[in-house]
Amino acid sequence: MAKIAILGYGTVGSGVFEVITRNNDIVSKNAKEKVEIKYVLDLRDFPGDPVEKVLTHNFEDIVSDSEVEVVVEVMGGTKPAYDFVKRSLQAGKSVCSSNKELVEAHGAELMAIAKENSVNFLFEASVGGGIPIIRPLRTSITADRILSISGILNGTTNYMLTNMSSGTLKYEEALKNAQDKGYAEKDPTADVEGFDACRKIAILSSIATGKNVSFDDIPTTGISKITKTDMKYVNATGGSIKLIAKAVLDENGAWARVAPVIISKENPLSTVNKVFNAILVEGDMLGETMYYGKGAGKLATAAAVVSDVVENILLKNNNVGCLWSEEKMQLESLDDIEVQKLVRIKVNDIEKAEEAVCDIFGVDEFITVKDGETAFITKKEKEALIKEKLEKLSNEAAVKQVRTTILYEA
Amino acid sequence: MAKIAILGYGTVGSGVFEVITRNNDIVSKNAKEKVEIKYVLDLRDFPGDPVEKVLTHNFEDIVSDSEVEVVVEVMGGTKPAYDFVKRSLQAGKSVCSSNKELVEAHGAELMAIAKENSVNFLFEASVGGGIPIIRPLRTSITADRILSISGILNGTTNYMLTNMSSGTLKYEEALKNAQDKGYAEKDPTADVEGFDACRKIAILSSIATGKNVSFDDIPTTGISKITKTDMKYVNATGGSIKLIAKAVLDENGAWARVAPVIISKENPLSTVNKVFNAILVEGDMLGETMYYGKGAGKLATAAAVVSDVVENILLKNNNVGCLWSEEKMQLESLDDIEVQKLVRIKVNDIEKAEEAVCDIFGVDEFITVKDGETAFITKKEKEALIKEKLEKLSNEAAVKQVRTTILYEA
Repeated sequence: MAKIAILGYGTVGSGVFEVITRNNDIVSKNAKEKVEIKYVLDLRDFPGDPVEKVLTHNFEDIVSDSEVEVVVEVMGGTKPAYDFVKRSLQAGKSVCSSNKELVEAHGAELMAIAKENSVNFLFEASVGGGIPIIRPLRTSITADRILSISGILNGTTNYMLTNMSSGTLKYEEALKNAQDKGYAEKDPTADVEGFDACRKIAILSSIATGKNVSFDDIPTTGISKITKTDMKYVNATGGSIKLIAKAVLDENGAWARVAPVIISKENPLSTVNKVFNAILVEGDMLGETMYYGKGAGKLATAAAVVSDVVENILLKNNNVGCLWSEEKMQLESLDDIEVQKLVRIKVNDIEKAEEAVCDIFGVDEFITVKDGETAFITKKEKEALIKEKLEKLSNEAAVKQVRTTILYEA
Repeated sequence: MAKIAILGYGTVGSGVFEVITRNNDIVSKNAKEKVEIKYVLDLRDFPGDPVEKVLTHNFEDIVSDSEVEVVVEVMGGTKPAYDFVKRSLQAGKSVCSSNKELVEAHGAELMAIAKENSVNFLFEASVGGGIPIIRPLRTSITADRILSISGILNGTTNYMLTNMSSGTLKYEEALKNAQDKGYAEKDPTADVEGFDACRKIAILSSIATGKNVSFDDIPTTGISKITKTDMKYVNATGGSIKLIAKAVLDENGAWARVAPVIISKENPLSTVNKVFNAILVEGDMLGETMYYGKGAGKLATAAAVVSDVVENILLKNNNVGCLWSEEKMQLESLDDIEVQKLVRIKVNDIEKAEEAVCDIFGVDEFITVKDGETAFITKKEKEALIKEKLEKLSNEAAVKQVRTTILYEA
């Protein structure tokens, strides 16, 4: 018999309760012993809910109970989650968490504490919801040098971009629609500005490099500036636009970025639509492998958490090691990374403006979807150089304004 | 230091040698000890090849050497692979294998022998080449009742179907092309008739049910009958055709099948093209997750084998259990499974033939891409009933011949 405690009875927490209750036969068989929920911690009461029998308002009940083998942290945020997880590990209990904020900010330290105490800190559900990605990176991609990881890691923005892709919906309408459907929060900032995806790529990059990649060091652009007209240009390129979280690792170092990118139909990520997520991992031997599924949702996320419960029970006091250390990973500046961009400019004189583009960028193919504007795709050049050239272009009399630039990957 | 032996220095075997040699730092770090190849068994000599130093022609050298911890079986076939694997396990060595034929025919027995001897028999590379699928099923999908598994499990046929999809290439031309590129063997039977995909879905179904699903019990249709004209009908439906290996598990039992299926653009498998493979797993909690990557190829397959080497070294004498038992899994007949089919008929009188279809099948929408023919998609009905109705239809005077039927999934 393995007894567990769940910290938090919100969406994911009640999902974990449901998965362990409904699929107790399967979970127990895979854990090789009966799994029982001994406590659920929440400040609230839930009269009439089956959780009542195991509900506690006091974390001390859990941390002081030597019968509790695994603690599930699904509260979100870092306060008090960080303290509770740390104290659970120090008390010799393994922990699993779906909390990307906690893992991004304190993962290295918590894994080290788990190691000292011969237990484990697992967090499959912190990236990609129900999609197995952390465990495959730890246990399956073990013969490869990871060259890059790129993914659609936020379901809210992917849902909005999928709906905007026809070019008939404004950003504000797409947001409203996502909020009405329950896919976007009332304050959608963390999703639409890319912060959520950024935390997740920080976690994946930390695993890939073995060092601590910080959220704050990853240049992040969200989707809130993308307009209906931008979408028409995207469609004219034949590609589709996705909020891509990407990390590239080579001999010289690593860089990471979150930004909307126009990707071609050949990119396996281009067909990942609606609230689905996918992560593409490139290894030097394996080539590309992709992991696809529901990036959020109560039961999918809970199932991933419970897979960690099962592994924690099986592992007992065998620590699997730290996926990354507290040593800070220095990321390269994006200035020296070669990229292509779709550039959309408002013009005073279209002919002269296109001549200027030709002179400055050496590009003579243009896309037009709206009067008084033109657009083009730059050659592959260092980002800093493109910035310089755009500055120069914007000073041309024929050019009214550089309206938009969007990353483009052929 | 962990010493290993490789049985077979063919494509995959030389790949394993290369991966362990080139990425020795990564492999050793993940295995938590230095990994060294002590023997490679092959009947041939390889003068000048770095393998020479560790080459042996005698399996007894390996099985009798107590220093050898892990044996890698990449010979293919069951003779002598089965004996070598069995004897290695009995000698207390863990084994990893990429050999789907061996795993399908003897997996249950070999896992049981591994358990008795407190070692492990792992076979990640036997399905999906480089794609992590066996390990995710064992260690990540542990909170779910698996409802179905469907996949594109054969790269050769997927390459051919992708090339045929425009409707300009005959089957024979597509085969020739695949042979020229090295994607199809001189005798392509195992690939094009679906036997390779069948072995792989038998393995996946055995994992999902915990019982032994036999290759011989799975109705299998290959792609060799698909014509250029069939492809035009497929395109007219708006879907794409893939050789789908599928297993469905429900309370009443399980069924499995390998056959060409027209799938809609919404199915995530529809965008899996060329030699890529993908496996879609449906769980009752997780929903659908998909695993995508190179289904074959020297280094990709070898990397998956080496991930098993790493796990075997980490596990030491901890047996992970048997994924399925020797008990035979009884599969349901497909007769009672409800399906839809695209039916293509040659006609003597098109109007009367379509009237007959309308009478017999209750269908009044037709697809026409060629004179003297018509085609339609049946309603969802039991396969046996569709067969009966087709029999009746073929007896109509207005119908010359039921030319083709292809499974259709909306």
